[in-house]
Amino acid sequence: MRIGALEAGGTKMVCAIGNEKGEIFEKISIPTKTPETTMPEMIQWFKAKKIEALGIGCFGPIDPDKDSPTYGYITSTPKLAWKDYNIVGAFEECLCCPVGFDTDVNGSALGEVTFGQAKGKKNIVYLTVGTGIGAGVYAEGKLLHGMLHPEAGHILMRRREDDHYEGKCPYHKTCLEGLAAGPAIEERWGKKGIELQDRDEVWDLEAYYLAQALTDYILILAPQLIILGGGVMHQEQLFTRIRSYVKEMLNGYIKTKELEDIDHYIVPASLHDDQGIMGALELGRRAFEEKNS
Amino acid sequence: MRIGALEAGGTKMVCAIGNEKGEIFEKISIPTKTPETTMPEMIQWFKAKKIEALGIGCFGPIDPDKDSPTYGYITSTPKLAWKDYNIVGAFEECLCCPVGFDTDVNGSALGEVTFGQAKGKKNIVYLTVGTGIGAGVYAEGKLLHGMLHPEAGHILMRRREDDHYEGKCPYHKTCLEGLAAGPAIEERWGKKGIELQDRDEVWDLEAYYLAQALTDYILILAPQLIILGGGVMHQEQLFTRIRSYVKEMLNGYIKTKELEDIDHYIVPASLHDDQGIMGALELGRRAFEEKNS
Ligand SMILES: Nc1ncnc2c1ncn2[C@@H]1O[C@H](COP(=O)(O)OP(=O)(O)O)[C@@H](O)[C@H]1O
Ligand SMILES: Nc1ncnc2c1ncn2[C@@H]1O[C@H](COP(=O)(O)OP(=O)(O)O)[C@@H](O)[C@H]1O
Ligand SMILES: [Zn+2]
Ligand SMILES: [Zn+2]
Repeated sequence: MRIGALEAGGTKMVCAIGNEKGEIFEKISIPTKTPETTMPEMIQWFKAKKIEALGIGCFGPIDPDKDSPTYGYITSTPKLAWKDYNIVGAFEECLCCPVGFDTDVNGSALGEVTFGQAKGKKNIVYLTVGTGIGAGVYAEGKLLHGMLHPEAGHILMRRREDDHYEGKCPYHKTCLEGLAAGPAIEERWGKKGIELQDRDEVWDLEAYYLAQALTDYILILAPQLIILGGGVMHQEQLFTRIRSYVKEMLNGYIKTKELEDIDHYIVPASLHDDQGIMGALELGRRAFEEKNS
Repeated sequence: MRIGALEAGGTKMVCAIGNEKGEIFEKISIPTKTPETTMPEMIQWFKAKKIEALGIGCFGPIDPDKDSPTYGYITSTPKLAWKDYNIVGAFEECLCCPVGFDTDVNGSALGEVTFGQAKGKKNIVYLTVGTGIGAGVYAEGKLLHGMLHPEAGHILMRRREDDHYEGKCPYHKTCLEGLAAGPAIEERWGKKGIELQDRDEVWDLEAYYLAQALTDYILILAPQLIILGGGVMHQEQLFTRIRSYVKEMLNGYIKTKELEDIDHYIVPASLHDDQGIMGALELGRRAFEEKNS
């Protein structure tokens, strides 16, 4: 089965063709401009590939509720050209095939659950730490939406006493994203993350905030596995520090086999940065199955 | 169908007989002493009632994982007499009927979803604020367990600047429970909650912390409804304040129809404090159905 996959991001659109086994045959990247210029490019590309279904993991916020009149829309995004844009409708109309749709991070979570290290698990969190911070959540065997979808990058944080940075989130100042996403690191320390590689205090503070968020996710969602991806997590030294802060913050309150083996509980993404595209393939496969069942 | 229901708490065991419609025929309360004295009393009572199934909503932490060797146990509770006690096993052996088992708060969530104001919803949070703080979570149509079950009363909090109380949680000091459960209110202000009724500053601070927790639950779980129960929530003045702090903390970042109608989004329990027992009836019904399917 030939499936199209789209990882729709704020700076680039990654388009790919693959199959239901998660195999990727080809992949291109198109800069994200306006719907007027970017959509026809993508549609033309996918049309030539004769796909039977399309899956989209999309930047948000989006409306993933099939019973809603604005299902398939990108909603209140700061990328104004795409605000209230019916991306699913546009593809359905032009490609005449079923279209699956979810957030980019739910897509990545699904990729890891279907094809990666989270296979067989019913409860996981996929967190991306990049330009923004977002979480995909798989709960009791389903992608979690609720009244919208998780926006767990914006939870409120306890500031570390020695940190006086004011915070970068336009809505919450010192939420997780405001204190710990790439741009916050850059503004606090005056350099890009990659140039701060050797500065211990940078990654210690970063790990402190990420661990605080993971501690809250653990207490609220009880995931069986936590996967961390995104540009900032290329600083691999973060993992050891995060694990040790999580243990310190939980302070023995919860005892599970997962936490006892924390090196295999809080882990990097396993699919060579293809988790998003592979998740989109699965979103496409599911849309096809649903249409034909 | 005659179903037994048990709401197992640290101070009392509420036992009831009812049916699959949530109707309660009789109800007694037995003080929680040790398993040696309390279990025979309950077993004798239930035995005489000729029940076809039993449902238990239990204080915890518990092991609700049917694939685990310690399924049905109360695990690392501070109530030492009940630590590592196989409560499901004991009832199954003596009552010879299927037994359903979950946390007390998941039980209450299930009661509200099956028989109460949350009927038809797939994502809700039930929070109890009493001697402790605990959350039951219904996610995508299922009670959430994950690697254990939510322990969302222990999430880490941002302290309000004018509050210098050190916090009461033996594990985390200033987690939600440590700052906002009944005993924390009592220790901070030197009087029981009920005697502080007229002290505005008490309930303003309490609402601030509860709202902070709800804001994080909203961002992580995206529930369609949040129900608050437990002794402290008898201070009904809390609801207006909590709703207004939640709006302030989210600061317009998430837009949903639920949040627009926040008076019907953050609400008191609707089942006259029977939500736990009614949830236990449903746990019993489900155990029966599973056994006979
Ligand atoms: N190796 C690295 N070390 C530290 N920070 C990095 C690294 N690579 C990228 N970043 C930071 O991550 C952010 C970009 O995140 P990325 O996940 O690559 O893209 P996006 O979130 O825009 O999809 C930038 O703020 C960048 O500074
Ligand atoms: N009307 C009230 N106003 C304020 N606090 C109350 C009220 N009733 C009970 N509490 C507090 O709630 C706690 C008991 O919670 P409750 O839910 O009744 O029992 P438990 O949590 O032990 O099952 C105590 O700390 C008590 O002081
Ligand atoms: Zn924010
Ligand atoms: Zn605690």
